[in-house]
Amino acid sequence: MNIVLLESEDVQSELWSIRSKRQLQHLREHLDITVGQNLKVGIRNGARYTTEIVSMNEQEVCIRPIRDEAVPAKLPVHLIVALPRPKVLRRLIMDSVTLGVERISLIHSYRVDKSYWQTPFLQQLDNYVTLGLEQAGDTIVPEIQLYKRFKPFVEDILSSLISEESPAYVAHPYAGQSMPVNIPHACSVVVGPEGGFIPYEVDLLTKNGCQAVSLGNRILRTETSISYILGRLFT
Amino acid sequence: MNIVLLESEDVQSELWSIRSKRQLQHLREHLDITVGQNLKVGIRNGARYTTEIVSMNEQEVCIRPIRDEAVPAKLPVHLIVALPRPKVLRRLIMDSVTLGVERISLIHSYRVDKSYWQTPFLQQLDNYVTLGLEQAGDTIVPEIQLYKRFKPFVEDILSSLISEESPAYVAHPYAGQSMPVNIPHACSVVVGPEGGFIPYEVDLLTKNGCQAVSLGNRILRTETSISYILGRLFT
Repeated sequence: MNIVLLESEDVQSELWSIRSKRQLQHLREHLDITVGQNLKVGIRNGARYTTEIVSMNEQEVCIRPIRDEAVPAKLPVHLIVALPRPKVLRRLIMDSVTLGVERISLIHSYRVDKSYWQTPFLQQLDNYVTLGLEQAGDTIVPEIQLYKRFKPFVEDILSSLISEESPAYVAHPYAGQSMPVNIPHACSVVVGPEGGFIPYEVDLLTKNGCQAVSLGNRILRTETSISYILGRLFT
Repeated sequence: MNIVLLESEDVQSELWSIRSKRQLQHLREHLDITVGQNLKVGIRNGARYTTEIVSMNEQEVCIRPIRDEAVPAKLPVHLIVALPRPKVLRRLIMDSVTLGVERISLIHSYRVDKSYWQTPFLQQLDNYVTLGLEQAGDTIVPEIQLYKRFKPFVEDILSSLISEESPAYVAHPYAGQSMPVNIPHACSVVVGPEGGFIPYEVDLLTKNGCQAVSLGNRILRTETSISYILGRLFT
């Protein structure tokens, strides 16, 4: 947690108030805060501030904004990823948000177990986003959408997003072309499930305008590949 | 698991044998194997093969090598990382091995809880390495070393490894210089603990020849930063 993310209702008066149990526990256990100390804070979908701790007790930490800070820019990336196993979902969303992805689409694919769409973790996406923003020091919530049908997503949604100014790359171990480096434009990045997309899916993606690109001859786990790809695309 | 990693004692006769419960379970549950089918196999610290499944029962899958395959090259990187929380250790080692890191040093640092050095997970490093190799399709075990004292490691070990041909970069959020992109040489990469290195540690690292470099104005988790950095350094 590199900033404390507050809701707009927490910052209505001159003094702001941190009351979330999770945040209070983190401040106590990891940051060892004291009155008079500075604390980095952001308002969800708003600005970022350095604040000063004015008072604190078991239930609440009161802070006063001292000065504005810059919110880090997003990466102009639409990350399209096959819905992962529930236990991977939290980390995947959190890390993608931390890395600055602007938009995330979770999609179905042949090798995505249908039961994954029933996981209660999908109700927790907002919390995972909060954790990712607090890690990055960011405040702006990315757009997240779920698409339970692969073909309509690719044919109707994805194909309409692809242009010369904003190409789409699908990470595919056996592609001849390599994932580009340091691109000067926006893009979509499509990442398959564990076990990869099946040939029909790769075909459908490329027929609809995606470029199949390789990450080299090592096969990375989904989550690992996302930060690897983003470290490469925007340097 | 993109290859099955065998020990040299498993491949002494004409037919080779897979007997590990973990590997057999994975083959049954995820790959749905049948006799006559091909299977990718590697020998620990040896070659890689395409094999054919000759017979199978509950306890054993017998395979016959058909042809040699290339083992993917390692990245010329010595990853030096502050010992993470036990639950992060497995993923961190596994992913670093999958990404192709040649050598890993786990080091102490002020913000590493001393209890982390007592975790039984440190006895499991060989297993994490196996998982990472099987994910990548690699067979070569990287060198892993533990250094429980920060200062002697930096002054005696690290400083002697740094040269013009093989510089060391320490990821530091407030460095002026950026992490380089697509370097044509070997290097060491130093990654701090959650909460970062303390100023004394960054000073000691830079005094001993490390270059402090920034990853941009988002603060990444240790594990996320490793694949992000490697995606950038070797493109």
